[in-house]
Amino acid sequence: MTQLRIAILSVGDELVLGQIDDTNASWLARRIPALGVMAGERRTVGDDQASIARAIVELSRTHSAVVVTGGLGPTLDDLTREALADAIALASGESRAPLEEDPAGIAHLRKWFEEKGRVMPPLNRRQALRPPGTSLLANPNGTAPGIATWSSAPLCVFCLPGPPREMQPMFDAEVAPKIAVDGAVVLTAALHTVGLGESSLAAILGELMDRSRMPSVGTTAKAGIVTIRIRAEGNVIDAQRALDATVDVCRSRVSNIIFGRDEDTLESSVGALLLAYGATLATAESCTGGLVSARLTDVPGSSAWFKGGFVVYANERKMEDLGVPSSVLDEFGAVSHATAVALARGALRRTTSDYAISTTGVAGPTGGSLEKPVGTVFIAIADRARAEVCSRRFQMTGSRQTIRERSTVMALAALRNALLDNPLQSLLWAESERVHVEPL
Amino acid sequence: MTQLRIAILSVGDELVLGQIDDTNASWLARRIPALGVMAGERRTVGDDQASIARAIVELSRTHSAVVVTGGLGPTLDDLTREALADAIALASGESRAPLEEDPAGIAHLRKWFEEKGRVMPPLNRRQALRPPGTSLLANPNGTAPGIATWSSAPLCVFCLPGPPREMQPMFDAEVAPKIAVDGAVVLTAALHTVGLGESSLAAILGELMDRSRMPSVGTTAKAGIVTIRIRAEGNVIDAQRALDATVDVCRSRVSNIIFGRDEDTLESSVGALLLAYGATLATAESCTGGLVSARLTDVPGSSAWFKGGFVVYANERKMEDLGVPSSVLDEFGAVSHATAVALARGALRRTTSDYAISTTGVAGPTGGSLEKPVGTVFIAIADRARAEVCSRRFQMTGSRQTIRERSTVMALAALRNALLDNPLQSLLWAESERVHVEPL
Repeated sequence: MTQLRIAILSVGDELVLGQIDDTNASWLARRIPALGVMAGERRTVGDDQASIARAIVELSRTHSAVVVTGGLGPTLDDLTREALADAIALASGESRAPLEEDPAGIAHLRKWFEEKGRVMPPLNRRQALRPPGTSLLANPNGTAPGIATWSSAPLCVFCLPGPPREMQPMFDAEVAPKIAVDGAVVLTAALHTVGLGESSLAAILGELMDRSRMPSVGTTAKAGIVTIRIRAEGNVIDAQRALDATVDVCRSRVSNIIFGRDEDTLESSVGALLLAYGATLATAESCTGGLVSARLTDVPGSSAWFKGGFVVYANERKMEDLGVPSSVLDEFGAVSHATAVALARGALRRTTSDYAISTTGVAGPTGGSLEKPVGTVFIAIADRARAEVCSRRFQMTGSRQTIRERSTVMALAALRNALLDNPLQSLLWAESERVHVEPL
Repeated sequence: MTQLRIAILSVGDELVLGQIDDTNASWLARRIPALGVMAGERRTVGDDQASIARAIVELSRTHSAVVVTGGLGPTLDDLTREALADAIALASGESRAPLEEDPAGIAHLRKWFEEKGRVMPPLNRRQALRPPGTSLLANPNGTAPGIATWSSAPLCVFCLPGPPREMQPMFDAEVAPKIAVDGAVVLTAALHTVGLGESSLAAILGELMDRSRMPSVGTTAKAGIVTIRIRAEGNVIDAQRALDATVDVCRSRVSNIIFGRDEDTLESSVGALLLAYGATLATAESCTGGLVSARLTDVPGSSAWFKGGFVVYANERKMEDLGVPSSVLDEFGAVSHATAVALARGALRRTTSDYAISTTGVAGPTGGSLEKPVGTVFIAIADRARAEVCSRRFQMTGSRQTIRERSTVMALAALRNALLDNPLQSLLWAESERVHVEPL
């Protein structure tokens, strides 16, 4: 496996100030491994010549090449050209040479403005400047040419313009071919699970997560979903084989809680099951207020298995739309097993669907009580075939948003387990305090 | 203005590989200036002990302090604790000391799992480890305590957990007070607008956006909402005065399209209006599939003005739940002015609300036709007081997700304009092709 590692340097005050997100860096970080090269460190510096130069030199010490985005514009705060010349001088120990004007660059700029029927503003002339011994990279989508030190200088640096629609094509056309390593790739797989906490899952994966292991296995957690991330390196055949083998080992240990791979989502996996069974689904949402339906309808083609849902936020809607008896609301309250069951039952009856999900809880920040503090959530699944409604009580923590998100994930996970009649189902309910089942 | 500069270091393979976006870094970059400190360099390194340690040491050379996020989890690929010990040894030139177990940390972990009625997995014990001479930072929202070298060691480093809902409160409670500088501040204001494109808005703001201007004025656009960002520096009194003055100038130019400031959202501003009017709202969603309801119920206290909604994805739901005549669906189709009007009318009648929003459209990727290509969306507002239903046709572009998001924003914006009887309403419909009004 190649040891080539490419660093990514983003330049711009607006990035350092967090005024815009650095989408260029994440795009490059996803693109580079596909070329068989490791994505290395990422840095963000402001529009400061010394900081840019220092970052280029430092990153070059630990990486095979540095891809710089931003700072190639025509204005005085675009300093990447000058900083690159500083960096070359620093790295070579030679004296700092002034920038040269590139004739091809001037021609490109003249043509660009001519085609737009405009005169080139004097400021843009700066965009044709580059350090001696470097070469320009063509930019068919904007005024700023890129700059490459490839085959020159003591450094390997590629400077690209900041706008994504200029940077991305330039990277693919001018940079990728130069850094790509034939035959060598970095392949990744993501296995998404729901039902176990990150540490419990790690305990099961055990030695697979040793840092020294290849392919490497790691985990990340987000809103109730824990993802197993696998990375294999080498020539395309060995890497694929090794990746598949590790994926199989992981599956063999926690198959029941893996709901999808890579781009799969919990909602798309539930949709695929419903489609396969030819079954349909309806929702009755109180505390999630439409989040479950929104996630389900985010799946293309969901109309085949999702008929509709009811956001029954107020009690009168619970009664009028889904026939929740007022006696149930009076006796047990809107946040209870009885109401969750009645909501799921009502949605099932009203829509003639095969399954119905209901949610009711205290999302906060107010509305909590001693017996039902903020984070108390009841989730019920009505199953026409089994003629059964199963409600579970959860105690969740976090902000209103977190409680609503986790409730949505738990509702979809509960449906998935019902669809699969999942033996590991119990695992999912580590945080489920009580279960209540009654006939439809 | 202080010269204190704080560096931000993000740790995680999933970040380096671009598998998830680094939202922590941008959040910190926005937060730090409010403390009167400059946000400095940002770096992202993988789960590699040597890289983390080297980054901490290098950043410490050029910055007053380093805030590290991630790598404090319980698993073997969480290496920030060990790397911090390495960094302290490197910087002090003393020998590398082994990590110590912090009794308070163990107590916190025990309590955390006890409260959840669970036994602490052995792996989590690692989360109580810290380098000698450092101190733990309390984490009320998760298992991982933070680590601070403050007042110890040759470095000033704050290590925070990766999950935003744990990291953000910990930064505000434990880190901000330690790095804040009295007197000097960077104050920012964000004015959120809907109704004008970014370039049209920029044309109105004109010279306010000159780069040399203080306070500075910029714009950022996201999913149909354009935000005016204002930034003032100096001592707290002058900065506040300058900020307020610039905010007033901006308001004087585009007041009608500004719906909120800073943390305000379009949904919270709509909710505030409904609350002020003592009016209630219902929704009837087809193409947005619950997104409008989900955004509305994301607002704390929304139950005061939002009664409920109907996700009428299938035609039979449109007919059965909201009484859309089959003749309308047959003659005009589900994606039409007539259906949008019937949906809004149905939701209004069924819920006795004062206002109703309806959406119906082709979100794609399939389902488009010549007359109604993907991105065709009808949004209707039913207004009981005016005894009127107004439907608008939009032609949107982008992915299924973008079309659904923009439809949600446009629906909320349409309601806001109806509530305000907004004279600038017409602006909003730059992309609205046709308007259709009929009596309730």
